[in-house]
Amino acid sequence: MKDKRVENIQIHKVGSDKIDEVADKVAVEEPLQIQLLYSTATGQMLKDIAVTMRTPGNDEELAAGFLFTEGIIKDPQAINEIKRSHSDENIVEVVLKENIIPALGNAARNFYTTSSCGVCGKASIDAINTVSVFAAGKDNLLINASLLYHLQDTIKEQQQVFEDTGGIHASALFDCGGKFILLREDVGRHNALDKIIGAALMKNELPLNGCLLFLSGRASFELVQKAVMAGIKIIAAVGAPSSLAVEMAKENGITLIGFLKSNRFNVYCGKDRINLK
Amino acid sequence: MKDKRVENIQIHKVGSDKIDEVADKVAVEEPLQIQLLYSTATGQMLKDIAVTMRTPGNDEELAAGFLFTEGIIKDPQAINEIKRSHSDENIVEVVLKENIIPALGNAARNFYTTSSCGVCGKASIDAINTVSVFAAGKDNLLINASLLYHLQDTIKEQQQVFEDTGGIHASALFDCGGKFILLREDVGRHNALDKIIGAALMKNELPLNGCLLFLSGRASFELVQKAVMAGIKIIAAVGAPSSLAVEMAKENGITLIGFLKSNRFNVYCGKDRINLK
Repeated sequence: MKDKRVENIQIHKVGSDKIDEVADKVAVEEPLQIQLLYSTATGQMLKDIAVTMRTPGNDEELAAGFLFTEGIIKDPQAINEIKRSHSDENIVEVVLKENIIPALGNAARNFYTTSSCGVCGKASIDAINTVSVFAAGKDNLLINASLLYHLQDTIKEQQQVFEDTGGIHASALFDCGGKFILLREDVGRHNALDKIIGAALMKNELPLNGCLLFLSGRASFELVQKAVMAGIKIIAAVGAPSSLAVEMAKENGITLIGFLKSNRFNVYCGKDRINLK
Repeated sequence: MKDKRVENIQIHKVGSDKIDEVADKVAVEEPLQIQLLYSTATGQMLKDIAVTMRTPGNDEELAAGFLFTEGIIKDPQAINEIKRSHSDENIVEVVLKENIIPALGNAARNFYTTSSCGVCGKASIDAINTVSVFAAGKDNLLINASLLYHLQDTIKEQQQVFEDTGGIHASALFDCGGKFILLREDVGRHNALDKIIGAALMKNELPLNGCLLFLSGRASFELVQKAVMAGIKIIAAVGAPSSLAVEMAKENGITLIGFLKSNRFNVYCGKDRINLK
């Protein structure tokens, strides 16, 4: 049986001046919409509660755990059943027992669902796609593979907080000649990237279509999406990409590099921008 | 000058049958509330947009980048100024130019701000605290240091998706004798933990006050908060904790272990539950 948590893809492995096309696997990332069905004085109410970018599997546990750890249900016995939508595998409906009132708390006060995580917190799957104001267009970007191997030397010099604490993400910009432009650190990787893009915005330097974006960790859908919004064309991550990050990069003509080491890396899409000489 | 991104703390380093109290540093994690001030037909409007758990520094960039990458402002020139609140260092107000209308989009449709990230997406700082239904109470939990060194051997056997992809987080439960109970993997670490807690909830096994929680990455505020909600008393993370994770653990009488290796670890609080014999 196919493991729905893992997706098989073809990638290019680059190292020692050669490039091989090989079969590889990435962790699946897909949106799960959590809905809540409960009784009110005037009848039953079905509410979209949250969308979380998750790896499929144990979705019922995820929905139950989310509602409980967020304090929306306070009684471990509050749930009557958890059903999957017939029409969409990525929607689960949590049915509360009669007389259980979910603590949707200050929902009336907190009106906006826009989330600092880019995707999660949004209350419907439709809401996870944002559209860049920058036209895609053709480019002639070319980056030397040898240059990529040295990015982390520069990063190490610049990562002050990581050196002190060992517990922080970094995003950084380089030009396509490998010249360092800017680095930002944050406990939230989406924040580190927002700081980079916000700095460029405040200096009126968007779009960043001549830059390479370095990510100190994994590449998620959310990070690729933010890069798309800023017009970035090349992303190099130290960690693994998710399935949806690869898909988003492909759709937007982005070169996505993962598992960047000092002598090798993987290319998930857009290899034409990499010069192996 | 003090670096506001780093906090100095006292911790205990455990290794080779000894325990040393030493000075250490953790990355600071604090909520930033992003507010938006813009003109409407009926006058000026000030809205709470999001709270993100961030490392202080470059907050104006973060606010600008967030609004742009989320598509709330579409024109890089839309911002008039970014002001910090006089009363609270963790609030920034982004003032838009006249005639700029923020794309708050389907905000009316997406009513709830509850976020899949536990904290981010919530529109006010007051909203980030959740309260556990389980009384704190006294316990006599004791765990052998030697047992902690071996947790990762078990984890490696169980982490199927990580073995395939190298790009996924795990949360796992052990009993205090080191017996493996449950592991869940997800691209979102908050999801992996919600799956664990949801599984326990569905089996009516909450609170998890006799269990040890293993985290494959760093320990953030959000993860400690979710553990508190489930009544968990001991957390062992492979990565670093944030400042707010340590604070949250202390306040709730949790034993927080970080940088767990095969022969050493750091204890950030609650060391009385660890038996060095």
